[in-house]
Amino acid sequence: MANNREILLVKRPRKEPASDHLTITETDMPVPDEGEVLLRLLYVSVDPYMRCRMNEEASPMTPFELNQPLEGGAIAEVLESRSPKLNAGDIVTGNLLWREYSAADPGSLRRIDASLAPATTALHVLGLTGLTAYFGLMDIGKPQEGETVVISGAGGAVGSTAVQIATIAGARVVGIAGREDKVELIQKLGAAEAINYHEADFSQALQAACPEGVDVYFDNVGGEISDAVYPLLNKFARVVQCGAISSYNKPHDQGPRHQKHLLASSAIMKGFAVHDYRDRFPEGLQFLTKWLNEDKLTYEETIIEGFEQIPDALFGLFRGTNIGKQLVRVAKPGQEKE
Amino acid sequence: MANNREILLVKRPRKEPASDHLTITETDMPVPDEGEVLLRLLYVSVDPYMRCRMNEEASPMTPFELNQPLEGGAIAEVLESRSPKLNAGDIVTGNLLWREYSAADPGSLRRIDASLAPATTALHVLGLTGLTAYFGLMDIGKPQEGETVVISGAGGAVGSTAVQIATIAGARVVGIAGREDKVELIQKLGAAEAINYHEADFSQALQAACPEGVDVYFDNVGGEISDAVYPLLNKFARVVQCGAISSYNKPHDQGPRHQKHLLASSAIMKGFAVHDYRDRFPEGLQFLTKWLNEDKLTYEETIIEGFEQIPDALFGLFRGTNIGKQLVRVAKPGQEKE
Repeated sequence: MANNREILLVKRPRKEPASDHLTITETDMPVPDEGEVLLRLLYVSVDPYMRCRMNEEASPMTPFELNQPLEGGAIAEVLESRSPKLNAGDIVTGNLLWREYSAADPGSLRRIDASLAPATTALHVLGLTGLTAYFGLMDIGKPQEGETVVISGAGGAVGSTAVQIATIAGARVVGIAGREDKVELIQKLGAAEAINYHEADFSQALQAACPEGVDVYFDNVGGEISDAVYPLLNKFARVVQCGAISSYNKPHDQGPRHQKHLLASSAIMKGFAVHDYRDRFPEGLQFLTKWLNEDKLTYEETIIEGFEQIPDALFGLFRGTNIGKQLVRVAKPGQEKE
Repeated sequence: MANNREILLVKRPRKEPASDHLTITETDMPVPDEGEVLLRLLYVSVDPYMRCRMNEEASPMTPFELNQPLEGGAIAEVLESRSPKLNAGDIVTGNLLWREYSAADPGSLRRIDASLAPATTALHVLGLTGLTAYFGLMDIGKPQEGETVVISGAGGAVGSTAVQIATIAGARVVGIAGREDKVELIQKLGAAEAINYHEADFSQALQAACPEGVDVYFDNVGGEISDAVYPLLNKFARVVQCGAISSYNKPHDQGPRHQKHLLASSAIMKGFAVHDYRDRFPEGLQFLTKWLNEDKLTYEETIIEGFEQIPDALFGLFRGTNIGKQLVRVAKPGQEKE
């Protein structure tokens, strides 16, 4: 009985992921085992890291398997429960298969209280996105009042949250993005300066925007944008290596060596994954929820409709077409099963 | 009254320093002011970084001035004191002019207790060399028992001390050097493996020497040697950026970008200068002295005799003839003033 659909990885991309790498196919309706729940996918989050999982070698992440469904952060509704932990009608979040209906173990799901904040916030500002910005900035960047914090990819989901958290911390924020609407967003969120890296004189513009140098660099992008930031690092600067999206599709990316800048500034550079902080998620969510309710933290989300739109939403990330968090709505809660 | 001598920079070298760049000249005996001391030079340390200070532009260091005496790490005897801080007969170390007799401010000098260790150790293992290895390794690298520590430039003065400190900490040390006598030295000092980077299959040899990956990378060199280390970093690895000698003469040095490796391993990379730890020098010296007295720490030094030999000792560094720390003995303590 093929009234369910899923999205499979059918070919590993070498560069940008595109339509010949994914396919949408029909599959059977699952039947939950004792202790499991039947889920209907409501919202799917598409994220740059998924590109890495499409490689045969994705260490430290697990590669997606060929001819198997992809998975990622998602929100679902419990349609049927064979577990005492969840009830039909509950809204949950977790790492879910890109499959309209799935059977799942409740142990890997977190129930969302939609009375505290809209459910979709669990996929960004009150989810891994917000936690990534929070721990990267507060545990590695440690911005002090009056310090200059440069954020690359500042118009993205993590970046725009980092802009706001750095502002809450009293720092002077300089945001970098590649599109004018993102530049405007960054300014709206409280950045002192917002720079479009497509400017011909980007390096000069950045230097002019940082007259007292750079104390914290929250880097989502890497590549030539970072090359312009490193020479500006102040003594004891902190580089938060949150992402390096410019290199995900370029395995042999070359550039100037940065060691001499770290030496000259006694700077620190640290990579991290949000799951490194798993034990401290409650702390992060507590602060993020507080700031959200105090209107110190806002978010942008772009929602497109339809399960079949998920691949294009993912591909769009690499063309930078989205603003804020890119989500796909697959169904509405309580919607009749078709 | 010209019974004093000094060594002046009379011409800036373009490549290797040689005899036409330095001159030995007679100068007056200094008379210490109130609060100053009269010093007689005993030992002079000649170091590769001095070549950088011979350039017109030596940032972040101060260039040597033309027709002025050079200066560097040295040991001297206090002949006469007009300060309550030091007494005649005290042996001191500091950054001193290449001049047989100088008047100096005691604030820039550190008294050496020659009953604890030979005075010359203040110019290497119990001086900035030893402190650089100590703080880089213990404050940034933090090697744990059984972890793998890779050290580049492991046959040099800092590197060979780092090899021993990492061994004391119970780590498994893999040293990298570019000369066979240095490879032998590294093995003698306790490294589990020592690799010559001139090997055709250096990357493979390094990988084979680190079957459990790399937990700490103490880097003096940068460049292609580091390019081979980054892919081997373990989760939560620490990269100690102590130097990057391979790039000092290549301002536009390019190579693979390392951000993705820091991301994949949640690794930390930190540059430092030994003076960042000035407040903690007593702690470092205490441990280094203890290990030296317990014979856990050894050192190599090459000493030649005579003030007039200082230029040749310096030039010899660039022909790579010395092993261990190169020193020049100018006079013996208590020796009659001629």
